[in-house]
Amino acid sequence: MLYLEDIEVGMTFTSQEITITEEEIVAFGLQFDPQPFHTDPDAARSTFFGGLAASGWHTAAITMRLLVTGGPAFAGGTIGAGGQLSWPTATRPGDRLHVTGIVESVKPSKSKPDRGMAVLRIETLTSDSELRQLFIVNTLVFRRPE
Amino acid sequence: MLYLEDIEVGMTFTSQEITITEEEIVAFGLQFDPQPFHTDPDAARSTFFGGLAASGWHTAAITMRLLVTGGPAFAGGTIGAGGQLSWPTATRPGDRLHVTGIVESVKPSKSKPDRGMAVLRIETLTSDSELRQLFIVNTLVFRRPE
Repeated sequence: MLYLEDIEVGMTFTSQEITITEEEIVAFGLQFDPQPFHTDPDAARSTFFGGLAASGWHTAAITMRLLVTGGPAFAGGTIGAGGQLSWPTATRPGDRLHVTGIVESVKPSKSKPDRGMAVLRIETLTSDSELRQLFIVNTLVFRRPE
Repeated sequence: MLYLEDIEVGMTFTSQEITITEEEIVAFGLQFDPQPFHTDPDAARSTFFGGLAASGWHTAAITMRLLVTGGPAFAGGTIGAGGQLSWPTATRPGDRLHVTGIVESVKPSKSKPDRGMAVLRIETLTSDSELRQLFIVNTLVFRRPE
């Protein structure tokens, strides 16, 4: 388990891969983002996306799954406070996604002696290295108990 | 349907409400964010959250559902390019959530004459006005065809 003392600027990690299917895209879209380009492959053709695309929140949720199941094992869990999120390209059916991360900064808390924050740059990429999501996230990391 | 010409700084909207249940929190957690504080009410007690909490991505996904089903009807869909996301407090079982929005800026694209970007401040709130999520999002908005 990783504590704040174990984290250094420049540390990297790479997750496993996961393939997203048309069925999963449609199911997520129907539940959380019911718009034709996320729920209906035919209707999606005449939209901005020109075909079925995953909700950005689906890409984000898959990214979290990849982080939690194959990213760094922070003591106490992987807990993000927020950050800067963008979707440069849309996730498509059949995309094989993985996540890479790099530690951009590490800072102990001034007010809470048991914790600190690390800024991670999290990229969600296809097997062709197309960037589907970028998340620069402030992550809560606990200090090693004395 | 709203085009860029219909959007003005200061315009506001409020969505309907949705109640999030323990079962939904656990189901989302098992699928996308499998950590004890999102999946196991008993184990969650001894974690940072002190009890079951929704994944931030679940809060984000519900926010999108509230926007798409009861927010502003942008022509061509509600399409976010990204933005600044934070979760000041954790969503809990039984929370009754709604979303408020305000237009912070509107700007036609310099390179693409058919569209522009609006910055929206999207707050996800409980019925007690506790802020569960803040998303300052760059939203693609199409111009009215001539």
